[in-house]
Amino acid sequence: MRATTTILKIGGNVINQPEQLAQALHYLATLPSAAVLVHGGGRKADELLLKMGQEPSMIDGRRITDAATLEVVTMVYAGLLNKQIVAQLQALQVAAIGLSGADANLILAQQRPVRNIDYGFAGDVGAVNATFLEQLLTQGFYPVICPITHNGAGQLLNTNADTIAQAVAQALATLRPISLQYCFELAGVLEDLQRPDSVIARISAADYAELRAKNIISAGMIPKLDNAFAALAAGVAEVQIGNLSSLQAGKATCIVGE
Amino acid sequence: MRATTTILKIGGNVINQPEQLAQALHYLATLPSAAVLVHGGGRKADELLLKMGQEPSMIDGRRITDAATLEVVTMVYAGLLNKQIVAQLQALQVAAIGLSGADANLILAQQRPVRNIDYGFAGDVGAVNATFLEQLLTQGFYPVICPITHNGAGQLLNTNADTIAQAVAQALATLRPISLQYCFELAGVLEDLQRPDSVIARISAADYAELRAKNIISAGMIPKLDNAFAALAAGVAEVQIGNLSSLQAGKATCIVGE
Repeated sequence: MRATTTILKIGGNVINQPEQLAQALHYLATLPSAAVLVHGGGRKADELLLKMGQEPSMIDGRRITDAATLEVVTMVYAGLLNKQIVAQLQALQVAAIGLSGADANLILAQQRPVRNIDYGFAGDVGAVNATFLEQLLTQGFYPVICPITHNGAGQLLNTNADTIAQAVAQALATLRPISLQYCFELAGVLEDLQRPDSVIARISAADYAELRAKNIISAGMIPKLDNAFAALAAGVAEVQIGNLSSLQAGKATCIVGE
Repeated sequence: MRATTTILKIGGNVINQPEQLAQALHYLATLPSAAVLVHGGGRKADELLLKMGQEPSMIDGRRITDAATLEVVTMVYAGLLNKQIVAQLQALQVAAIGLSGADANLILAQQRPVRNIDYGFAGDVGAVNATFLEQLLTQGFYPVICPITHNGAGQLLNTNADTIAQAVAQALATLRPISLQYCFELAGVLEDLQRPDSVIARISAADYAELRAKNIISAGMIPKLDNAFAALAAGVAEVQIGNLSSLQAGKATCIVGE
């Protein structure tokens, strides 16, 4: 059987701490086979917005992206963070290549339609160019993907990094076995948010329904778990949710389909 | 004979004007064969530096790049400008892929040693990964290169875009016939700076020596022409210097070796 390819998603909590980031990149560099890194934003975009006299605006954890905010997140995500990560991976002898969704038409998105809230230049993921990713992986490259996409008509869009990781995992799962790993601030999905060590080892779809009915799953966890089950349903071999230590130790929460 | 591949370098004067930029991208899209775009910076980096309370600092047209300035140029060149250009090319059905020198180890550079002036995080071009560029071109991609490079040890570096265009042209010239085109604000190398139409049609190495002896070549033009002759000496098939109109009409200055 072919070796599993890891799609590792790292969020702001990792990116904000140089040591954590260095550890995550080291983890990626020492994986036994090919990998894709998807990174989120972190606090740098907010810092830059404030310096430029703009107030960051979020609703339910999603950024309201007006034209000035789009410029800032494009600069920070696709420019500063993406290239710093790529340069650090190169220093670890990893053949990293940084990409936005516009590059090689990697991720085509649609601007989110206005219903109750106008999210501005926020993109919902459409098609992923899996053929191109497959070519890069076959050539030994490690794609590093930032959460900026485009609509195919010249407009860049700000897109949720968790969703990009899921979409990339699903698209590649048609071509090779995929492990999708969400690296965030907790060791896994917790039975009790007050006890950081109460990691649930394994959650099936049936468990998930039961845990939600009992209100054990926190609100912030629900989109991640929905993403995870959607990915499994679409052919991703495994999904793990945890922090760097738990993922490395194989002690993160494992999401399973059946 | 194989079709000639164009390396088109566009500078700040093109990037600062949306209409000029759109025209340049249209020119690229309608070239009869493969092409690489190398872009410089423009005024956006200075605007952002000023907003962040930093004073842009230049010596002889070269930017002094301290750590904060490096962050800004990485954001603006590798993030905002590169991705806006890529998205616009994608809208023209051009399979553009944006790259810094760190991506796929495309351009390895050395931090400029301090002699009289400390340029900070300024990079002098070392090796170009021509194999990777050749792969992309063979696959039908149009690389779009921004002037940020890396030193292979995790450090990003700010690098002159004219020099990057020359180095990329030279590296690819070992693999395919290359036309290097510098697009700047004038119609070509002028016999008289007061007369914008006094374009010198053709400059050989012998002509260049003579023109310099007569003080006809302006100071700002000398590095461009030195780059051009170096590129020819290294196997680049042709070098042209002009603006968009003169390049499109075949009326730019043509630099020839003999």
